[in-house]
Amino acid sequence: MKKYDKLVKNAVGRIVPTIINGEEHIPFKGVGKYIPDGRKFAPRLSSCANYPDDGNKLVPSLKEALIKAGLKDGMTISTHHHFRNGDIIAVQIFDIAHELGIKDLRWFPSASFPCQEPLIKYMEDGTINRIEGSMNGPLGKFCSQGKMKGIGVLRSHGGRYQAVQDGDVQIDIAVIAAPTADTFGNANGVNGPAACGLLGFALADSQYADKVIVVTDNLVPFPCIPWQIHGNYVDYTVKVDKIGIPEKIISGTTRITKSPDRLLIAEMTAKFCDEAGIIKDGFSYQAGAGGTSLSIGNYFGDMLRERGIKARFIRAGSNKYPVEMLEEGLVDYILDGQTFDLEGVRSMRENPNHINTSPFTSYNYHGKGNFATMVDVVILGATEVDVNFNANVVTHSDGYLLHGMGGWQNCLFSKCTILPIPLFRDRIPVIKDEVTTICGPGELIDVIVTERGIAINPKRIDLIEKLKGSELPIKTIEELKNEAEKICGVPAKPKLSDEIVAVIKWVDGTIIDAVRKVE
Amino acid sequence: MKKYDKLVKNAVGRIVPTIINGEEHIPFKGVGKYIPDGRKFAPRLSSCANYPDDGNKLVPSLKEALIKAGLKDGMTISTHHHFRNGDIIAVQIFDIAHELGIKDLRWFPSASFPCQEPLIKYMEDGTINRIEGSMNGPLGKFCSQGKMKGIGVLRSHGGRYQAVQDGDVQIDIAVIAAPTADTFGNANGVNGPAACGLLGFALADSQYADKVIVVTDNLVPFPCIPWQIHGNYVDYTVKVDKIGIPEKIISGTTRITKSPDRLLIAEMTAKFCDEAGIIKDGFSYQAGAGGTSLSIGNYFGDMLRERGIKARFIRAGSNKYPVEMLEEGLVDYILDGQTFDLEGVRSMRENPNHINTSPFTSYNYHGKGNFATMVDVVILGATEVDVNFNANVVTHSDGYLLHGMGGWQNCLFSKCTILPIPLFRDRIPVIKDEVTTICGPGELIDVIVTERGIAINPKRIDLIEKLKGSELPIKTIEELKNEAEKICGVPAKPKLSDEIVAVIKWVDGTIIDAVRKVE
Repeated sequence: MKKYDKLVKNAVGRIVPTIINGEEHIPFKGVGKYIPDGRKFAPRLSSCANYPDDGNKLVPSLKEALIKAGLKDGMTISTHHHFRNGDIIAVQIFDIAHELGIKDLRWFPSASFPCQEPLIKYMEDGTINRIEGSMNGPLGKFCSQGKMKGIGVLRSHGGRYQAVQDGDVQIDIAVIAAPTADTFGNANGVNGPAACGLLGFALADSQYADKVIVVTDNLVPFPCIPWQIHGNYVDYTVKVDKIGIPEKIISGTTRITKSPDRLLIAEMTAKFCDEAGIIKDGFSYQAGAGGTSLSIGNYFGDMLRERGIKARFIRAGSNKYPVEMLEEGLVDYILDGQTFDLEGVRSMRENPNHINTSPFTSYNYHGKGNFATMVDVVILGATEVDVNFNANVVTHSDGYLLHGMGGWQNCLFSKCTILPIPLFRDRIPVIKDEVTTICGPGELIDVIVTERGIAINPKRIDLIEKLKGSELPIKTIEELKNEAEKICGVPAKPKLSDEIVAVIKWVDGTIIDAVRKVE
Repeated sequence: MKKYDKLVKNAVGRIVPTIINGEEHIPFKGVGKYIPDGRKFAPRLSSCANYPDDGNKLVPSLKEALIKAGLKDGMTISTHHHFRNGDIIAVQIFDIAHELGIKDLRWFPSASFPCQEPLIKYMEDGTINRIEGSMNGPLGKFCSQGKMKGIGVLRSHGGRYQAVQDGDVQIDIAVIAAPTADTFGNANGVNGPAACGLLGFALADSQYADKVIVVTDNLVPFPCIPWQIHGNYVDYTVKVDKIGIPEKIISGTTRITKSPDRLLIAEMTAKFCDEAGIIKDGFSYQAGAGGTSLSIGNYFGDMLRERGIKARFIRAGSNKYPVEMLEEGLVDYILDGQTFDLEGVRSMRENPNHINTSPFTSYNYHGKGNFATMVDVVILGATEVDVNFNANVVTHSDGYLLHGMGGWQNCLFSKCTILPIPLFRDRIPVIKDEVTTICGPGELIDVIVTERGIAINPKRIDLIEKLKGSELPIKTIEELKNEAEKICGVPAKPKLSDEIVAVIKWVDGTIIDAVRKVE
């Protein structure tokens, strides 16, 4: 079997395969242009007659649970990444698969992290055929080097839900590491020694996988409250000594930036939002966990406090900063998809206005709407942006696939998408004629804020109009690019082979770009 | 088309049709004997591209929403019964259908109530072909008289979820009356002028219906918190002046019985549970909202208080009595499927340990287990019981179909099922050689408690053993029947024709009995 086949040029001009790992895929058609006409994936019917009357689904070990679940060659095994770099269960699963001589598995994590580097040996020996999911760090590098047997498939959080819901990816066995659970399989992330906040990234897995295993190190008597995962979807439960390292679930810098350039970018972004009329009573925003984003959130908080107004909600990735705003009464709700520090976990556990959300509620594009479109302004990062506002978030300028997409693509549907980015990193300009990998089409990216100026997407005539007469340094994106090139020179293109090692899915399951092997 | 066809004798010896309203059905095979081998119903895929970017799905009226949803002849329209006898939306739906000249609709309520008696005219004029759902009072009588054009199909709460999940019933349009909602369709029952507690009976409808309409009289800005119904499943939202009459949502007597016979039955039931070893730290129970049940709950509360122990959970239908126990600390959690009074509503709104559940979590038999099996003891009613412990809950001894099943069948799966019933009602014995309608097979009914004695199902050797030497009046069910007949005489059989007017589904979707026309 060829790893990929049938290359076509898609609607953003990228050459992408339409046969990938032996399965047919649809090339990107344009935003909102591909409307599916099928039906959701239909999981097998179960019967209570085949489950224990007393609700106790406990089996002695993860190995036994995997055997009972029918682990065999070629299966798709899913995990979630709520522990981020503190996960220890994913490696155990494939240790067991290796021990049992199982081959050719598709690993379908909601994201993978450097702590899972030990899995490289199983990609080398054929235990794992490929990773479908975001690859942060060494696993991405391994893929970039063309060493993975199958083609990597990267999806956004919403795209992953869509793929499972639509049956694009059929999960044979989902393993859900849960900080607290009962023997029936009800589970949550807010309690227990490895509390990670919530388990939303495992929601689709629980709903649609053929077999579902909940692994916990904190077993409580039924009912486990709250049940973020419904035991009614669960086949087996397993008690282990430890499911994750809670100190390592922390993500992002979780500190306000001290870099003068970044502080300037943050201040300009906040001012831009204000002048664009976005900061008003009842507004909403989403910002990441990076130092610049946190700083922007702080500026927003200052404005709310000074003006005596209140935001309706913050979409998060929460950490102590939005939590402080919630507790101060500057915002009604945090709608949270993943907690980024232990303050976020505590707040979600204690505060009924700190709401746990899921890729279904927030991001699924094949639903009857989702929350992402209702956010007034979203602040995102990017590794590269091109003069058409297309942006890259997965590959570096050297071509290496080192980052996942998270909810980045999904967030682009907000009412205003702003990328606050430095004009150059390590003397390499960030604005280019063409990005290495298109993750988001330019038509959805509204504003680029750099330390030397702000570019508004020409499609956003309304924003250009509102900012007329502003003292902010509004420039064209070409002007910004030229400024950077004057200082750093024209950046060299990455040295890439023609060989495709991974593809990037758009939120509707179509292929928006391909990632090529680094020479 | 014949209304029904292909009669067969099922596993409890009842003659039932296997073609009903033109569709094939499976006869009851025995408890746990029918294992489905198909897949869940797969709803059509949607795309956010077809829903408003700002999340606002508001349309000006219910009529417009129904037209947009494509209302046409022969469709299946679903509603929920959380307002019970205070519902006003169901009648409006069919007023609109009638006005539009639509015919032959299947109404699929989670239950129907006397307040919906105005719909009889639409069953007469052909707007509505039939009701599939519990029929309380006049609608049931109409059905019993053979006046409904189609055959009624009665399902338990869990059976209704199963039927929707499995695709046995495909809902074209679900109308969800919601005490609070946002324009996106997120909705809950805990807030607003018509607060009814929760919306669990509409869960399956929201997940599986082709089109979903949320109607509210209390519109709040996004996000409506909590969202018991996910707006991501909703097509249209409608704001009306009033969605229900909250004073009429109250169900059951909500008063402890004062009848000496019933108090005696309650006391004997509580004592039985104690002597059977059921009342201990961490136990769980479910009791209804009738006067006897409430009184039993009170006895349980006294035992917990005196012994300084705590129940783990009460499964409810909640009202002020379990709420008081929760607030007093006699129980960790209420797992609540419907609130029966406004104290129940308040508690669910305010108390994080008063948990809203759904027919999916609690009762769905085609899931990977459900909560009902984990309840230590459940106290249920019955209109009739036979000497094999088979019980009837839908027809009276005169043959009229006057009650719904609620979660009754589902609850039979508890660890101990007790029916505390009077030995006779209006001088008609309740224990018979054969019940008019079998709703629950005797093998799942463990104990009958009457004012003149307690009968333990001979299958429960363990309970018989535990009660040896008890001072409670343990008798055989034949002894109880004979005692009643000595006093009242042998009851006359109801006068029924051969014509079938409705069928009773078992929890797995098979037909356990048929209801015949009253002569």
